Amino acid sequence: MDPVANEFSVLEQICRPGKQDDARVVIGPGDDLALVRTVAPGGDVDLQSGSLLLAGVDQLIDGIHVSLKDVGLKAAGRKAITRSLSDIAAMAGRPVATLVSAVVPVGMSGAEALELFESMKQVAAHYHAPLVGGDLAYHQDEHGVLNCSVTVLAVPPSDGAIERFGSKAGDGLYVTGKLGGAWQGAHHLTFEPRLAEASMLKAILGERLHAMIDISDGLGRDASHLVERSGLQVVLEGELLPCRDGSDLIGAVQDGEDYELLFTASGDVPEGLGACSVTRIGSIRERDTADEPSVLLLHDGEEHDVSCSGWEHGAK
Amino acid sequence: MDPVANEFSVLEQICRPGKQDDARVVIGPGDDLALVRTVAPGGDVDLQSGSLLLAGVDQLIDGIHVSLKDVGLKAAGRKAITRSLSDIAAMAGRPVATLVSAVVPVGMSGAEALELFESMKQVAAHYHAPLVGGDLAYHQDEHGVLNCSVTVLAVPPSDGAIERFGSKAGDGLYVTGKLGGAWQGAHHLTFEPRLAEASMLKAILGERLHAMIDISDGLGRDASHLVERSGLQVVLEGELLPCRDGSDLIGAVQDGEDYELLFTASGDVPEGLGACSVTRIGSIRERDTADEPSVLLLHDGEEHDVSCSGWEHGAK
Repeated sequence: MDPVANEFSVLEQICRPGKQDDARVVIGPGDDLALVRTVAPGGDVDLQSGSLLLAGVDQLIDGIHVSLKDVGLKAAGRKAITRSLSDIAAMAGRPVATLVSAVVPVGMSGAEALELFESMKQVAAHYHAPLVGGDLAYHQDEHGVLNCSVTVLAVPPSDGAIERFGSKAGDGLYVTGKLGGAWQGAHHLTFEPRLAEASMLKAILGERLHAMIDISDGLGRDASHLVERSGLQVVLEGELLPCRDGSDLIGAVQDGEDYELLFTASGDVPEGLGACSVTRIGSIRERDTADEPSVLLLHDGEEHDVSCSGWEHGAK
Repeated sequence: MDPVANEFSVLEQICRPGKQDDARVVIGPGDDLALVRTVAPGGDVDLQSGSLLLAGVDQLIDGIHVSLKDVGLKAAGRKAITRSLSDIAAMAGRPVATLVSAVVPVGMSGAEALELFESMKQVAAHYHAPLVGGDLAYHQDEHGVLNCSVTVLAVPPSDGAIERFGSKAGDGLYVTGKLGGAWQGAHHLTFEPRLAEASMLKAILGERLHAMIDISDGLGRDASHLVERSGLQVVLEGELLPCRDGSDLIGAVQDGEDYELLFTASGDVPEGLGACSVTRIGSIRERDTADEPSVLLLHDGEEHDVSCSGWEHGAK
């Protein structure tokens, strides 16, 4: 069986949405982050008790999400943290804390391990997500590669986190910044998680901000996540896509690693947030039949199914 | 350089106690769990704002913390969760949620990965720590072994978590349950995290419960953690140690994997908590000189330095 197929299918089965057995879980696994109410088990779970907390875990693996020999420990550590912070941005949350566990190669010296952890600690502190927990283990096999598992904790906006699944027919589809070529260039190592922009969007649009996700797997694939479990379809207008310098339409649709916000909203949306551009790139409509693709790219008068356009983790 | 020495030294340097730059971090890394206030960055951090949250991360690695080929996926999944819940117990916390990221061997089928995650999910739910986030990746090398990184979230008692470092000279030293032989037998796979017992202790003893830790590395080593950064010494009375059936004094002091509570308190302490025994095994006193061992075992009229008695992760 194909390992990549396994990965998605196992997580999908474990994270199957449905009735949560525990009333404290407001949003279960399956979104960028989960949303939980921080009260003791058996306690009164009402809208007033405890605080709401966003939490999620993600891994950075050498050879998949970063090439350690090419970029070095400091950049790898930065990316381990920033890609997880991007998940906070996707839910319009604000960071609280970070926890990291790492398994490092047999040959890594203490000084190198320290450089890695110092990088993660500094980047986490910079984004107001202080590193409060860490664990370090060495691979037992000489071939084992660096793997950092990063948990992020955040608080949602006071009127609730922005989920993936709130889009409505007629919504506009928008993206921050530019898309494409992020992996080939330095963008995937240097991007700024869109934390401030997400909070601004939520503050400006309020209830009109219907759904949001960050683009890591590629625009096509991540757009399809927005309309999962719905009768909706994403329509991308090719000529509207903001391509990163050196990239083209195909790169913008499938390269991934952009860590830009992709969101749907009704009504007027600002064209920029501070120095960050916001571009309308399409819309949401009802799907005519279940057979229709979930994400359609309109370009030069033709329609393309791009709902699977993106890169599989592990394919690089 | 010895990897094990590295591991402790790197974490020690990263987790060095001291002034926290972020006022939301009440207890930083270095204890069983961190304690953070869940408010947005820049928000008013006072005693009223947000909620207090305990958070920590730990790893379960095949060949170090469990032998997958001997115990199977279900038992490995159980232990991944319960050993992290034991950290919650050590701070007298009550579980809120669990997040897991796993790297699994190349040869693991989708059905096997599902069995592992289902086990973790069920065990987490059983202890009221619902699994709210998961990530799964496959090793890229055929020699890579199972590694589960588990983050636990919990709420502290209303008047504050129990730290490792609160012991006072004159305190009695106590342990729940029995010690020794946990790895050789089934105990390390079947133990119940002492969550209820820890809450009961806190409720009964209140301010008289001074410090607590769970015994994972071995009584000698974990007892030494209680008096780190202090001028105190732990005195263990050999004849008082409650040995697990089939174990002896040496096993009780150094075997580890007991996941029992080790705590210090002043005044009277109950001899049992429900079905769980509580045994006084020694006391805390001032160290006469800095050269004296941090943990002293008195047995048959002799004194033994057991402050390093325990097992190094990776030594098995």
